[in-house]
Amino acid sequence: MVSRSQDRSPGRFAYEGLARAVHEKARLSILTSLLIHRDGLSFNELKSLCSLTDGNLNRHLEVLREESFVEITKEQSAGRGSTRCRLTKEGRLRFFDYLEELQNVVRDATATTTDAPRAWKPRLQT
Amino acid sequence: MVSRSQDRSPGRFAYEGLARAVHEKARLSILTSLLIHRDGLSFNELKSLCSLTDGNLNRHLEVLREESFVEITKEQSAGRGSTRCRLTKEGRLRFFDYLEELQNVVRDATATTTDAPRAWKPRLQT
Repeated sequence: MVSRSQDRSPGRFAYEGLARAVHEKARLSILTSLLIHRDGLSFNELKSLCSLTDGNLNRHLEVLREESFVEITKEQSAGRGSTRCRLTKEGRLRFFDYLEELQNVVRDATATTTDAPRAWKPRLQT
Repeated sequence: MVSRSQDRSPGRFAYEGLARAVHEKARLSILTSLLIHRDGLSFNELKSLCSLTDGNLNRHLEVLREESFVEITKEQSAGRGSTRCRLTKEGRLRFFDYLEELQNVVRDATATTTDAPRAWKPRLQT
Protein backbone atom coordinates (compact mmCIF):
# COMPACT_ATOMS: atom_id res chain seq x y z
CA MET A 1 0.00 0.00 0.00
CA VAL A 2 1.28 3.44 -0.92
CA SER A 3 1.31 5.82 2.05
CA ARG A 4 -0.44 9.10 1.56
CA SER A 5 2.81 11.06 1.60
CA GLN A 6 4.36 8.86 -1.08
CA ASP A 7 1.31 8.89 -3.30
CA ARG A 8 2.31 10.28 -6.71
CA SER A 9 -1.07 10.36 -8.39
CA PRO A 10 -1.80 13.38 -10.59
CA GLY A 11 -2.95 16.41 -8.64
CA ARG A 12 -1.96 14.83 -5.31
CA PHE A 13 -0.59 18.18 -4.13
CA ALA A 14 -2.83 20.51 -6.14
CA TYR A 15 -4.98 21.47 -3.12
CA GLU A 16 -7.95 22.47 -5.23
CA GLY A 17 -9.88 23.21 -2.03
CA LEU A 18 -7.81 26.34 -1.42
CA ALA A 19 -10.39 28.63 -3.03
CA ARG A 20 -8.83 31.78 -4.45
CA ALA A 21 -11.43 34.05 -2.85
CA VAL A 22 -10.38 32.81 0.60
CA HIS A 23 -6.70 31.98 0.21
CA GLU A 24 -5.50 35.52 -0.53
CA LYS A 25 -3.73 36.59 2.67
CA ALA A 26 -5.74 39.72 3.47
CA ARG A 27 -9.03 37.91 2.83
CA LEU A 28 -7.91 35.00 5.01
CA SER A 29 -7.27 37.54 7.79
CA ILE A 30 -10.68 39.14 7.33
CA LEU A 31 -12.54 35.83 7.27
CA THR A 32 -10.77 34.44 10.34
CA SER A 33 -11.52 37.66 12.25
CA LEU A 34 -15.19 37.45 11.29
CA LEU A 35 -15.41 33.72 12.03
CA ILE A 36 -14.31 34.37 15.59
CA HIS A 37 -16.37 37.50 16.11
CA ARG A 38 -19.84 36.14 15.44
CA ASP A 39 -21.59 39.45 16.03
CA GLY A 40 -19.55 41.06 13.30
CA LEU A 41 -16.93 43.77 13.36
CA SER A 42 -16.88 47.39 12.33
CA PHE A 43 -14.79 48.54 9.39
CA ASN A 44 -12.30 50.16 11.75
CA GLU A 45 -12.02 47.10 13.98
CA LEU A 46 -11.32 44.90 10.96
CA LYS A 47 -8.80 47.41 9.64
CA SER A 48 -6.91 47.26 12.91
CA LEU A 49 -7.11 43.51 13.53
CA CYS A 50 -5.93 42.71 10.00
CA SER A 51 -3.41 45.59 9.66
CA LEU A 52 -4.97 46.77 6.40
CA THR A 53 -5.34 50.21 4.87
CA ASP A 54 -8.78 51.66 4.13
CA GLY A 55 -8.26 51.04 0.42
CA ASN A 56 -7.13 47.45 0.81
CA LEU A 57 -9.87 46.53 3.26
CA ASN A 58 -12.51 48.09 0.99
CA ARG A 59 -11.22 46.20 -2.02
CA HIS A 60 -11.09 42.82 -0.29
CA LEU A 61 -14.47 43.27 1.41
CA GLU A 62 -15.96 43.98 -1.98
CA VAL A 63 -14.57 40.69 -3.36
CA LEU A 64 -15.90 38.80 -0.34
CA ARG A 65 -19.31 40.47 -0.63
CA GLU A 66 -19.57 39.67 -4.33
CA GLU A 67 -18.72 36.05 -3.56
CA SER A 68 -21.37 35.98 -0.81
CA PHE A 69 -18.90 35.37 2.00
CA VAL A 70 -19.73 38.52 3.94
CA GLU A 71 -22.62 40.90 4.37
CA ILE A 72 -22.04 44.57 5.00
CA THR A 73 -24.59 46.77 6.72
CA LYS A 74 -24.63 50.48 7.46
CA GLU A 75 -25.73 51.29 10.97
CA GLN A 76 -26.66 54.63 12.49
CA SER A 77 -25.66 55.34 16.05
CA ALA A 78 -25.57 58.73 17.76
CA GLY A 79 -26.00 60.40 14.40
CA ARG A 80 -22.92 58.79 12.86
CA GLY A 81 -23.00 56.01 10.30
CA SER A 82 -20.83 52.96 10.81
CA THR A 83 -20.19 49.93 8.65
CA ARG A 84 -20.63 46.49 10.15
CA CYS A 85 -19.31 43.31 8.51
CA ARG A 86 -20.50 39.81 9.20
CA LEU A 87 -19.78 36.38 7.80
CA THR A 88 -22.79 34.91 5.97
CA LYS A 89 -24.06 31.43 6.81
CA GLU A 90 -22.88 30.24 3.39
CA GLY A 91 -19.55 31.99 3.85
CA ARG A 92 -19.04 30.24 7.17
CA LEU A 93 -19.65 26.82 5.62
CA ARG A 94 -17.36 27.51 2.66
CA PHE A 95 -14.67 28.85 4.96
CA PHE A 96 -14.71 25.57 6.87
CA ASP A 97 -14.27 23.70 3.56
CA TYR A 98 -11.22 25.84 2.96
CA LEU A 99 -9.90 25.17 6.48
CA GLU A 100 -10.29 21.43 5.89
CA GLU A 101 -7.94 21.70 2.91
CA LEU A 102 -5.57 23.91 4.89
CA GLN A 103 -5.35 21.12 7.45
CA ASN A 104 -4.47 18.73 4.63
CA VAL A 105 -1.50 20.92 3.71
CA VAL A 106 -0.24 20.93 7.30
CA ARG A 107 -0.84 17.18 7.62
CA ASP A 108 1.08 16.47 4.42
CA ALA A 109 3.97 18.59 5.64
CA THR A 110 4.06 16.92 9.04
CA ALA A 111 4.64 13.59 7.33
CA THR A 112 8.25 14.78 7.10
CA THR A 113 8.83 15.64 10.73
CA THR A 114 11.78 13.24 10.98
CA ASP A 115 13.98 16.04 9.65
CA ALA A 116 11.97 19.06 10.70
CA PRO A 117 13.79 21.98 12.32
CA ARG A 118 14.24 21.67 16.05
CA ALA A 119 11.88 24.58 16.72
CA TRP A 120 9.01 23.05 14.74
CA LYS A 121 6.04 22.05 16.87
CA PRO A 122 3.49 20.01 14.94
CA ARG A 123 0.05 20.47 16.43
CA LEU A 124 -1.97 18.27 14.13
CA GLN A 125 -3.52 15.14 15.52
CA THR A 126 -2.50 12.10 13.54
CA MET B 1 -7.31 37.69 31.13
CA VAL B 2 -8.27 38.06 27.49
CA SER B 3 -8.36 34.72 25.68
CA ARG B 4 -6.38 34.51 22.49
CA SER B 5 -9.48 34.32 20.33
CA GLN B 6 -10.96 37.44 21.92
CA ASP B 7 -7.75 39.43 21.73
CA ARG B 8 -8.42 42.59 19.71
CA SER B 9 -4.91 44.02 19.61
CA PRO B 10 -3.84 45.62 16.31
CA GLY B 11 -2.63 43.09 13.77
CA ARG B 12 -3.97 40.17 15.81
CA PHE B 13 -5.22 38.50 12.62
CA ALA B 14 -2.69 39.93 10.16
CA TYR B 15 -0.72 36.65 9.90
CA GLU B 16 2.47 38.37 8.77
CA GLY B 17 4.20 34.97 8.73
CA LEU B 18 2.28 33.95 5.61
CA ALA B 19 5.11 34.97 3.28
CA ARG B 20 3.87 35.92 -0.17
CA ALA B 21 6.46 33.79 -1.94
CA VAL B 22 5.09 30.68 -0.21
CA HIS B 23 1.41 31.43 0.26
CA GLU B 24 0.49 31.61 -3.43
CA LYS B 25 -1.45 28.39 -4.05
CA ALA B 26 0.70 26.92 -6.84
CA ARG B 27 3.90 27.66 -4.93
CA LEU B 28 2.44 26.11 -1.79
CA SER B 29 1.76 22.97 -3.86
CA ILE B 30 5.29 22.93 -5.25
CA LEU B 31 6.94 23.46 -1.86
CA THR B 32 4.86 20.80 -0.12
CA SER B 33 5.67 18.31 -2.89
CA LEU B 34 9.38 19.07 -2.56
CA LEU B 35 9.31 18.97 1.23
CA ILE B 36 7.98 15.42 1.13
CA HIS B 37 10.21 14.25 -1.72
CA ARG B 38 13.61 14.94 -0.24
CA ASP B 39 15.53 13.66 -3.27
CA GLY B 40 13.79 16.19 -5.45
CA LEU B 41 11.36 15.81 -8.30
CA SER B 42 11.61 16.20 -12.05
CA PHE B 43 9.82 19.01 -13.83
CA ASN B 44 7.26 16.55 -15.20
CA GLU B 45 6.63 14.92 -11.84
CA LEU B 46 6.00 18.31 -10.25
CA LYS B 47 3.76 19.33 -13.12
CA SER B 48 1.62 16.26 -12.56
CA LEU B 49 1.54 16.30 -8.75
CA CYS B 50 0.58 19.98 -8.66
CA SER B 51 -1.72 19.97 -11.72
CA LEU B 52 0.14 22.87 -13.34
CA THR B 53 0.84 23.75 -16.94
CA ASP B 54 4.42 24.02 -18.25
CA GLY B 55 4.13 27.79 -18.30
CA ASN B 56 2.76 28.11 -14.80
CA LEU B 57 5.23 25.70 -13.28
CA ASN B 58 8.13 27.50 -14.99
CA ARG B 59 6.96 30.85 -13.76
CA HIS B 60 6.49 29.76 -10.15
CA LEU B 61 9.75 27.79 -10.05
CA GLU B 62 11.54 30.93 -11.21
CA VAL B 63 10.06 32.93 -8.32
CA LEU B 64 11.03 30.22 -5.84
CA ARG B 65 14.55 29.99 -7.28
CA GLU B 66 15.03 33.76 -7.11
CA GLU B 67 13.90 33.68 -3.48
CA SER B 68 16.34 30.83 -2.74
CA PHE B 69 13.62 28.33 -1.85
CA VAL B 70 14.50 25.82 -4.55
CA GLU B 71 17.49 24.80 -6.59
CA ILE B 72 17.10 23.57 -10.12
CA THR B 73 19.65 21.35 -11.82
CA LYS B 74 19.86 19.98 -15.33
CA GLU B 75 20.74 16.31 -15.48
CA GLN B 76 21.76 14.20 -18.43
CA SER B 77 20.52 10.63 -18.60
CA ALA B 78 20.51 8.39 -21.64
CA GLY B 79 21.33 11.37 -23.84
CA ARG B 80 18.27 13.33 -22.74
CA GLY B 81 18.38 16.31 -20.43
CA SER B 82 15.99 16.49 -17.50
CA THR B 83 15.34 19.18 -14.93
CA ARG B 84 15.44 18.28 -11.25
CA CYS B 85 14.05 20.52 -8.52
CA ARG B 86 14.95 20.39 -4.86
CA LEU B 87 14.14 22.40 -1.78
CA THR B 88 17.19 24.27 -0.43
CA LYS B 89 18.16 23.98 3.24
CA GLU B 90 17.19 27.61 3.73
CA GLY B 91 13.93 27.07 1.84
CA ARG B 92 13.08 24.13 4.08
CA LEU B 93 13.57 26.21 7.23
CA ARG B 94 11.56 29.15 5.88
CA PHE B 95 8.81 26.82 4.74
CA PHE B 96 8.48 25.52 8.30
CA ASP B 97 8.19 29.13 9.53
CA TYR B 98 5.32 29.53 7.11
CA LEU B 99 3.71 26.27 8.27
CA GLU B 100 3.89 27.47 11.86
CA GLU B 101 1.80 30.51 10.92
CA LEU B 102 -0.55 28.32 8.91
CA GLN B 103 -1.15 26.30 12.07
CA ASN B 104 -1.97 29.56 13.86
CA VAL B 105 -4.72 30.25 11.33
CA VAL B 106 -6.24 26.80 11.85
CA ARG B 107 -5.88 27.11 15.63
CA ASP B 108 -7.62 30.50 15.64
CA ALA B 109 -10.45 29.11 13.56
CA THR B 110 -10.89 26.04 15.77
CA ALA B 111 -11.53 28.37 18.70
CA THR B 112 -15.02 28.61 17.23
CA THR B 113 -15.83 24.92 16.98
CA THR B 114 -18.90 25.30 19.16
CA ASP B 115 -20.83 26.27 16.03
CA ALA B 116 -18.73 24.57 13.39
CA PRO B 117 -20.50 22.58 10.66
CA ARG B 118 -21.25 18.99 11.57
CA ALA B 119 -18.76 17.68 9.00
CA TRP B 120 -15.84 19.71 10.36
CA LYS B 121 -13.11 17.61 11.92
CA PRO B 122 -10.55 19.69 13.79
CA ARG B 123 -7.22 17.91 13.83
CA LEU B 124 -5.14 20.43 15.70
CA GLN B 125 -3.90 19.51 19.15
CA THR B 126 -4.91 22.08 21.72
